Amino acid sequence: MRYHKIPDETIRRLPTYLREVLVLSEKGHEKVSSKRLAEFLGINPWQIRKDFSYFGDFGTPGVGYDTSKLQKEISKILRLDNSHKAVLVGVGNLGSAVMAYGEFGTYGLDIVAAFDKDHKKIGKTKNNITIEDVSKISSIKRRKVDLGIIAVPAKDAQAVADDMVKAGVKGILNFSTRHIVVQKKIKVISIDIAMDLARLPYYMSAS
Amino acid sequence: MRYHKIPDETIRRLPTYLREVLVLSEKGHEKVSSKRLAEFLGINPWQIRKDFSYFGDFGTPGVGYDTSKLQKEISKILRLDNSHKAVLVGVGNLGSAVMAYGEFGTYGLDIVAAFDKDHKKIGKTKNNITIEDVSKISSIKRRKVDLGIIAVPAKDAQAVADDMVKAGVKGILNFSTRHIVVQKKIKVISIDIAMDLARLPYYMSAS
Repeated sequence: MRYHKIPDETIRRLPTYLREVLVLSEKGHEKVSSKRLAEFLGINPWQIRKDFSYFGDFGTPGVGYDTSKLQKEISKILRLDNSHKAVLVGVGNLGSAVMAYGEFGTYGLDIVAAFDKDHKKIGKTKNNITIEDVSKISSIKRRKVDLGIIAVPAKDAQAVADDMVKAGVKGILNFSTRHIVVQKKIKVISIDIAMDLARLPYYMSAS
Repeated sequence: MRYHKIPDETIRRLPTYLREVLVLSEKGHEKVSSKRLAEFLGINPWQIRKDFSYFGDFGTPGVGYDTSKLQKEISKILRLDNSHKAVLVGVGNLGSAVMAYGEFGTYGLDIVAAFDKDHKKIGKTKNNITIEDVSKISSIKRRKVDLGIIAVPAKDAQAVADDMVKAGVKGILNFSTRHIVVQKKIKVISIDIAMDLARLPYYMSAS
């Protein structure tokens, strides 16, 4: 089942809510108010209520939202109720930082393989993953990997994306500055650190 | 001058437009249509026209937008018409990747200083920047740095943010998973790689 009409901006915030709700659940909180979530996350309470309204009404006025229901519902919408395996290509500084990043498990995401073309890196182990030769990336098909992370230089990014798609990857997180072109049914999210930094001055108060 | 009422989602796309328009300008293109921009960027043409409508009308039907006007206007809105200096704290894998990232200059952004607390790193030079002792971060005040990039572990992030703000930083790009609390007039943009990956399954077609 797909939930239509949920704006990208809401989808962007859902993982933040999910993480916070998981923390609250673990601490034994059965309920959370939008006000409290808002304080923790630095988001307007009305924004949170609006975001939650897209997937039904399970808040009780004056009491708040049921944390376990919220967790289940957000996971379902984001399709994180099943776990997902991810492959990383490019084990440079950025790729290494991605491999060392400890937060993927929170969302049921698991980096199960890493590839590079540098023979000095191939065969070495990082964060319990042995780096493989990128020319053998087609092997991920039988490992049922559906997410790909591209951390290679711009000139190699499109070829890596093509190989990923051939091997069954359905969603790509692209850290290269190259605009990736793939079939429409493949989702690409591009992260450009320079562009994120470039958004800051707009919001800064004049000195 | 501030341009009010421009949605965050539009601001998020403006650096993408700016980069593309700069490339077109350099190639000698004086005009660009929303259709052509849309093809290059994988964005709907109507989305582009709507985004541009927030800052006045300078497209000519059938001819397109004037690239040099577009460049000037987007830079002005994003406050990138003046250059900005940035400081990086945390020169691990991620920080090193940020330092090596070649795209900041496109937006008039310049990383002028890098700090770490690891004495093995302090004094070493990376990408023409000598890594300094984080205990001396207050020195950035006289260097007129207004942007900060946090690439330290979560437990150290808030203290680094506090030091940055004391030293005159007005906007922070936060790569740690810690939610940073600062005065309201300081803008924080947080990047969480796991959350970006967690958004992908929502958009992926069911197999």
